Amino acid sequence: MQRFINNPDEVVEDTVKGFVKAHADIVRLSAQNPRVIAARHTPVNGKVGVITGGGSGHEPAFIGYTGRNMLDAVAVGELFSSPTAKSFLDAAREANGGKGVVCLYGNYAGDNMNVKMAIKLAAKEGIEITTVVANDDVCSAGPEEREKRRGVAGEIFMWKCGAAKAAEGASLEEVRATAQKAIDNCRSIGVGLGPCTLPSVGHPNFTIEPGTMEVGIGHHGEPGVRVEPLRSARDVAEEMAKIVLDDHQLAAGSEVAVIVSGLGATPLNELYILHDTIESEIAGRGLTIYRVYIGNYFTSLEMVGATLTVMALDDELKRLLDVDVQCPAML
Amino acid sequence: MQRFINNPDEVVEDTVKGFVKAHADIVRLSAQNPRVIAARHTPVNGKVGVITGGGSGHEPAFIGYTGRNMLDAVAVGELFSSPTAKSFLDAAREANGGKGVVCLYGNYAGDNMNVKMAIKLAAKEGIEITTVVANDDVCSAGPEEREKRRGVAGEIFMWKCGAAKAAEGASLEEVRATAQKAIDNCRSIGVGLGPCTLPSVGHPNFTIEPGTMEVGIGHHGEPGVRVEPLRSARDVAEEMAKIVLDDHQLAAGSEVAVIVSGLGATPLNELYILHDTIESEIAGRGLTIYRVYIGNYFTSLEMVGATLTVMALDDELKRLLDVDVQCPAML
Repeated sequence: MQRFINNPDEVVEDTVKGFVKAHADIVRLSAQNPRVIAARHTPVNGKVGVITGGGSGHEPAFIGYTGRNMLDAVAVGELFSSPTAKSFLDAAREANGGKGVVCLYGNYAGDNMNVKMAIKLAAKEGIEITTVVANDDVCSAGPEEREKRRGVAGEIFMWKCGAAKAAEGASLEEVRATAQKAIDNCRSIGVGLGPCTLPSVGHPNFTIEPGTMEVGIGHHGEPGVRVEPLRSARDVAEEMAKIVLDDHQLAAGSEVAVIVSGLGATPLNELYILHDTIESEIAGRGLTIYRVYIGNYFTSLEMVGATLTVMALDDELKRLLDVDVQCPAML
Repeated sequence: MQRFINNPDEVVEDTVKGFVKAHADIVRLSAQNPRVIAARHTPVNGKVGVITGGGSGHEPAFIGYTGRNMLDAVAVGELFSSPTAKSFLDAAREANGGKGVVCLYGNYAGDNMNVKMAIKLAAKEGIEITTVVANDDVCSAGPEEREKRRGVAGEIFMWKCGAAKAAEGASLEEVRATAQKAIDNCRSIGVGLGPCTLPSVGHPNFTIEPGTMEVGIGHHGEPGVRVEPLRSARDVAEEMAKIVLDDHQLAAGSEVAVIVSGLGATPLNELYILHDTIESEIAGRGLTIYRVYIGNYFTSLEMVGATLTVMALDDELKRLLDVDVQCPAML
């Protein structure tokens, strides 16, 4: 493995240490739990707390989205594994400003289970936690089973809009509803060109043959809907846009926000090459791009590939997207 | 090649198209030259223009640093190749607000030659171009031959400080002097773990054997000072810090700014793991980190590896680093 690590079993430990050192002006490690990152200024009295949590290896997600007008606290899991219930609970404690906490997380079995347990534990100490479960990954289940879909990079929009709403002083239910609307308005698709390796395992846990691509791949290498010969970036981008936009069914004239994220080892220039076609496809359907993020926003270790996320906007979501944030992933 | 491209000979063309579409609120393509990116608001009358140029494949460098309080215009070369003299000239034309233009670029043979030609051509039409040549790459020549060293990620600090100085209304000579001071205060080192492939070539033009690392590697795979067995991130980071700081010879109590950049295919978590030790090494010498940037700031296609840049600060450089910028690489 050609990587910069120490003990393979301490990758998360070492990542968190370096992260907190690098961004000590924005974040801090919870004094109670070395697997919880909190914004420096958190908790804010009278503000709804906004938290998430998820497995490591997706950096800058999840920890990089902690900060001002963004997440108040994040529960940190091992590589590709859910944080513990205790870590979700401690994140809620860090974020609790007395108006309750909304936990905005992705639809994975481990996270679902641990968040549920954390809700019960928090209730015992008087902290109300409500949730929104992200399910923006189009290829992970059909349109009639949207609740089964996984959460992927659309979570970034869910966090940004939910956190900005909380910063405006909204109630727990208002923040939850806005975050729910944000993720309901998101559709995402991933295409994988190369696998990744968990350092403690030492070899990839899935394969992508050279000359092929996996359409609809998940953030942990979950199988996509099909393996195809790798085609031109133009063809790939057209297919990604078609899958997302066909599922979306937006009226012409709608405004959207877009994320084109690398999965870790795909160079930035290739994301721009994809975006050249993605933009044309979106415009071709009569949609207008209000804002676009291109880069490594939600990764899977050194997986080769890219994801596309499209969020339909209304006036509220545009206003919330426009709110300035201070977080390590968006400096 | 597992990559998102169309015609291998049109990678730069397609990258630039996607880039301009994505960031049309900040940048524009020159109407005169499809290999020149300019900031939307450029030129600014009465402001010194600040430009750079370099080969493509280092994204977000160079084009991503175009914007407000940053570069006014950038000449775009083919992959790993200097822009033409004409492109440097056209970048100067785009940036010219009547007070002259400073070209802040890296020490490579092609760039040196083409910038020199551009200076002569610009002089004929009354545009004065002065230059600063970056040479922050410690391993590319010994301390007695600093002028032979290549420019690498320290260029980002040179651009940021030079451009902020120009935005303050400084004269051509003042901007040049400040940018020169910024790069004089920078030292960088790269460590490579895996090679990269020019799409039109189809195979890597250098090799890094599994289990080894190349210490001092350049941004185009230029040989480093030695090939060693790959060691722990802690050992690698210590070595990187030692090489940079031994060359720097800063007095205890000095403040520094730091960039830990991935070379393209190294995941962000590994950069944080490196930074955990880098920070300790810097602090261990009695130095204080004023600001740190961690991410893919200056890459080499999908090379695996990382670079460390340390800039010594004074009050002026701190003030200039603090200036808010709006550019695609620092959103």
